Amino acid sequence: MWNENGMTKVLGIQYPIIQAGMAGSTTPHLVSTISERGGLGTIGAGYFNAEKLENEILEVQRLTDKPFGVNLFVPSKNRYLPDQINHMNAWLKPYRRAFNLEEPVVNVTEDIQFKQAIDLIIKYRVPVCCFTFGIPDEETIQKLKEANVTLVGTATSVDEAIENERSGMDIIVAQGSEAGGHRGSFLNHGDDEPMIGTMSLVPQVVDNVTVPVVAAGGIMDGRGLLASMMLGAQGVQMGTAFLISDESAASDLLKNAILGSKETDTVVTKVFSGKYARGIHNEFIDEMNQFDGEIPDYPIQNQLTNSIRKAAAQDGNRELTHMWSGQSPRLAEKMHAAMIMDRVISQVNKKLQLI
Amino acid sequence: MWNENGMTKVLGIQYPIIQAGMAGSTTPHLVSTISERGGLGTIGAGYFNAEKLENEILEVQRLTDKPFGVNLFVPSKNRYLPDQINHMNAWLKPYRRAFNLEEPVVNVTEDIQFKQAIDLIIKYRVPVCCFTFGIPDEETIQKLKEANVTLVGTATSVDEAIENERSGMDIIVAQGSEAGGHRGSFLNHGDDEPMIGTMSLVPQVVDNVTVPVVAAGGIMDGRGLLASMMLGAQGVQMGTAFLISDESAASDLLKNAILGSKETDTVVTKVFSGKYARGIHNEFIDEMNQFDGEIPDYPIQNQLTNSIRKAAAQDGNRELTHMWSGQSPRLAEKMHAAMIMDRVISQVNKKLQLI
Repeated sequence: MWNENGMTKVLGIQYPIIQAGMAGSTTPHLVSTISERGGLGTIGAGYFNAEKLENEILEVQRLTDKPFGVNLFVPSKNRYLPDQINHMNAWLKPYRRAFNLEEPVVNVTEDIQFKQAIDLIIKYRVPVCCFTFGIPDEETIQKLKEANVTLVGTATSVDEAIENERSGMDIIVAQGSEAGGHRGSFLNHGDDEPMIGTMSLVPQVVDNVTVPVVAAGGIMDGRGLLASMMLGAQGVQMGTAFLISDESAASDLLKNAILGSKETDTVVTKVFSGKYARGIHNEFIDEMNQFDGEIPDYPIQNQLTNSIRKAAAQDGNRELTHMWSGQSPRLAEKMHAAMIMDRVISQVNKKLQLI
Repeated sequence: MWNENGMTKVLGIQYPIIQAGMAGSTTPHLVSTISERGGLGTIGAGYFNAEKLENEILEVQRLTDKPFGVNLFVPSKNRYLPDQINHMNAWLKPYRRAFNLEEPVVNVTEDIQFKQAIDLIIKYRVPVCCFTFGIPDEETIQKLKEANVTLVGTATSVDEAIENERSGMDIIVAQGSEAGGHRGSFLNHGDDEPMIGTMSLVPQVVDNVTVPVVAAGGIMDGRGLLASMMLGAQGVQMGTAFLISDESAASDLLKNAILGSKETDTVVTKVFSGKYARGIHNEFIDEMNQFDGEIPDYPIQNQLTNSIRKAAAQDGNRELTHMWSGQSPRLAEKMHAAMIMDRVISQVNKKLQLI
């Protein structure tokens, strides 16, 4: 059977489909639905504090006995530069004024949150832990392995994939340039992010690692899953496809924006968070591109723009909030997450019968 | 059989593989080899004058009775701005001095060359004409259709694909962002080229046109061909894979550079020709990125840098010449073009037997 391979075996799932850990946009209901349907749901815990993560893990476990994962942002070096932050705060003042917002206190507690998250994953026997933005230290990996947590790393280049395997990751997600939301890049490849298309990235990663590879970026349906498997991937990770599902926590504003977008409407920008991410082009991006300074590192910029983006979204204003989407919005269809899963699987089964 | 579909039928070929029209790098021997092996060889005539094109057509026809194509650059509007050209010439002076080169006379005769090429294609009953950089006028298309020439257009976005179908193209090549060499983009999508990955572009194009779609960008082997077909394409166009073949006119300098490159080594730049193209990052790109003016339009910039690039290549200097490559250089293997064809086809046959 096409769905039985190293990836589904290692993860203990039926179908080789991972729901991407879209930080801030997953719900326990979305996660459990994907897992109940035979895929791997993941809690997008990138922005969660310990309390929030604990609640979500418990809620998912209440809803399903199937394997699921938690997706974490690996803390990366960031420069805390007061002058830079003041400069950005001055620039953001008109936005805050428009929404009646206070200047936020920057609070760099990534490391503590990350450690707490690891402890919760072990405590509650979460079966899978996925990483974005890099690879945790050896000690953390050792701890998770001793607790029998399956580890999924993210790579946007072959070198990153090799690093992931070397560090002990059980599965590697190869994230192509089409992917929506944050780029998982963590190695320095010169000035720019490696923007390698999924069609190029997957076979080159497959040829250079021995662990199962999962394709991500632009995949929305059975066609993408089959194409990925032909490239040598054992499965796919889908974000945007599930972001617009009824069970996702994304706003209707974002869901409707994706449904109304063309493949040419997204750009990769770090103006929202300080790290590169793909989203639908809007005024905030244009205006921030006029900014005459350096954008503070993640997570600082993320915190500086956070309340503005939230207020804009609540206001139904799509021009001043992040609108994450991959490059395949024309393939998006709004429906229940369970139906998305079933549709992808039946498309694959149908196509394979014709071959 | 997997190879029998609308694309192979319309083109009258056995296997759904087009050798990309790599202007300046094809040889009659390469073209005829691909066609003899069941694919569609194409003469990359983008830079040819009438005499050169006539010779190449006659030579290919001497070598094969099988269908082949000519790939043309559709002339686009360009601004001839003497001040801009002077500014660029001043900047390029040190390079010319290093190679003992004269300042070239800019000579914008694209329109005449294009018309002559169309007449030659009709005169010599070339079966297929492929277009890059746009769509020719109605009269030209009408003339070619009356002569039973099959027309292949290039699209880098869904809108460009729709325009291609509307204009009467029989087949559309969907060129993903992974592709090496020139981007075929011709519609204005705002500031930047649409850099849509192949995995995203192909299914979205397939859903929006009725003619056969051919995938291009990052495809080097049977895996890429099968993946493209799963996405709904009827075949593939491969450039870099054939650029490094023994039969290609590319320099050993370029072939070796591709064989020694990583997927992260290419960038998209217009410093060489005035139009965006993907090639291996080098010093010329870095230095030109310091240029304090606007880069002249294609074909002007192409002519201004031409002798420098040629001299550098002859000198074995890979830092000062264009080094076109797609994003999959790690998949490149130097061998005879016939072997590349046979390998791709046998990889597909083998894989399909396993399904």
